[in-house]
Amino acid sequence: MLKLYIGNKNYSSWSMRPWVLMRQAGIAFDEVMVRFDSFDADSDFKRALKDVNPVGKVPVLVDGDLAVWDTLAIAEYLAERFPDKALWPANPQARARARSVCAEMHAGFTALRGACPMNIEASLPEVGALAWRDKPGVRADVARLETMWGGLLQAHGGPMLFGDFSIADAYFAPVCMRLRSYGLPLSSAVRAYVDRVANLPGVAAWVQDALAEQDFLDFEEPYRLKR
Amino acid sequence: MLKLYIGNKNYSSWSMRPWVLMRQAGIAFDEVMVRFDSFDADSDFKRALKDVNPVGKVPVLVDGDLAVWDTLAIAEYLAERFPDKALWPANPQARARARSVCAEMHAGFTALRGACPMNIEASLPEVGALAWRDKPGVRADVARLETMWGGLLQAHGGPMLFGDFSIADAYFAPVCMRLRSYGLPLSSAVRAYVDRVANLPGVAAWVQDALAEQDFLDFEEPYRLKR
Ligand SMILES: N[C@@H](CCC(=O)N[C@@H](CS)C(=O)NCC(=O)O)C(=O)O
Ligand SMILES: N[C@@H](CCC(=O)N[C@@H](CS)C(=O)NCC(=O)O)C(=O)O
Repeated sequence: MLKLYIGNKNYSSWSMRPWVLMRQAGIAFDEVMVRFDSFDADSDFKRALKDVNPVGKVPVLVDGDLAVWDTLAIAEYLAERFPDKALWPANPQARARARSVCAEMHAGFTALRGACPMNIEASLPEVGALAWRDKPGVRADVARLETMWGGLLQAHGGPMLFGDFSIADAYFAPVCMRLRSYGLPLSSAVRAYVDRVANLPGVAAWVQDALAEQDFLDFEEPYRLKR
Repeated sequence: MLKLYIGNKNYSSWSMRPWVLMRQAGIAFDEVMVRFDSFDADSDFKRALKDVNPVGKVPVLVDGDLAVWDTLAIAEYLAERFPDKALWPANPQARARARSVCAEMHAGFTALRGACPMNIEASLPEVGALAWRDKPGVRADVARLETMWGGLLQAHGGPMLFGDFSIADAYFAPVCMRLRSYGLPLSSAVRAYVDRVANLPGVAAWVQDALAEQDFLDFEEPYRLKR
C-alpha cells in the first residue's frame, strides 16, 4: 500500500496537494500524520522524518522501498504509476500548460503565501483586507490567478481548470483555501471555481479532518493568539 | 523548429537549464536572447516577453502555437516529446528520485541562491568565504548537495548523478557554476562531479557564450562595481 506522510491538515498546504490528488482520484493510500511540533533539528517532526526523507519535510510518498519527496515529483510519480487515472490532461498541449502552471505555483506566489498562510479553520477577512490594501505583491499574485484560472476555465469550459479534475486543481486547492479564509476579492467566475474546488469530495474530506484537528500551533499562527 | 527564449547567459541560471539540456542531448532549437535591461513592468525585457509568457520570465519554450514556461515544465515537455533522448533515467525508481531532486532544487536552496547569484565570468572566492563563515543557510545548502550528489554518484557509479546525463544534471549545472565562482569548499568526489559538469560540451558551450557576452548589469552584481 502507498504511504503518504503529511503534516497538520489545518496548516500543511504542501501536504494537502498529493492527499487531495489521491483521494479525489480514488487512489488508495495509508496516511501517516507527522504533527508539526516545530521544525527545529531536534523536533519530534524532524526525528520522525529522518529515515524517510533526506530533506526533512512533508509530504513524502513511500512506495515499498522508494521514497518520493516534493509535491511535484510525487504528482509525476502518481501520474506514471496510475495511467488509467488520467491525472494530467490527456492532450499534450493542455498537459504542458498544466505542468507550467503547477511549476509556476511550486516556486511562485510568494507574496500571497507569505501574507496569507493556510489556516483552514480560521476566518481572517480583516487580515486579508489589510494585505490587499498594503501589499502590492498580494494583489499581483491574485491578479495572476485571475488571469490564469479565468483563461483556463474559459478555454476548457470548466468545471475544473483543464475540464476534468487534474493535478493542477489539486495543486491550487490550498490556494483556494487561502482565498476563502482571508476573504480576498475575486471575480465571480474565479469565486465560483474556488467554491467548486472546496466542494470536491477529496477537498471536503481534507477540510473536515482539518476542522477536527483542533491543534493550535503558535508558529503557524501569525494572526491569532488562540482559536 | 523549437524556440527557446533565454536571458543573459552570464546571469540567467534558470535559462541555462533547458538550454544545456537541449544542447547536451542534441535537440535542435533556435535561441531567442532577451537581454535583461531590468525587470520593471515597462522594461524592454518585459515588453519582449509580453506576448510569449504570461508570467513575464525566461526561460520559455515555444513549439508552434504552444508556449511552455517554467524550467520543470519545459523539462517534462521535452522528455515526453523526445522519448528517444532518455532525458529522465529509464528506471522508474531512479526517475522518481531524479524528479524529487529537481523539484527540491526548483523551490529550494534559497540561501545559496541568494548569497551566491550566478555570475559565470566572475571569480568571487572572498565573497564565498564570507558567506561560508557567516551564513549557516549557505553551509546547510552545500551540505545537502554533498549528501545528495555524493549519494547519487555512489549509487549510480557516475559520471553523472544518475549514471548517464539526465535532466537532473542540467538542473544542477547552474549550481555547479556558483560553487566554482564562489570557491565554496567541497569534498573531492563532489568537486570532481562539478568539474565533469563544467566539461560537458553543452555546459562548455553555454559558458563560452556567457564569457563572450561582456554585459555588466548592476542589478545582477551585488558584489562588483565593474568587470
Ligand atoms: N517544495 C516542497 C515543500 C514542502 C514543505 O515546505 N513542507 C513543509 C510543511 S507544509 C515542511 O515540511 N516544512 C518543514 C521545514 O521547513 O523544516 C514540496 O513541494 O513538497
Ligand atoms: N520558476 C521559474 C523561474 C524563472 C525566473 O525567475 N527567471 C528569471 C531570470 S533567471 C526572470 O525571468 N526574472 C524576471 C522577473 O523576475 O521579473 C523557472 O523555473 O523557469
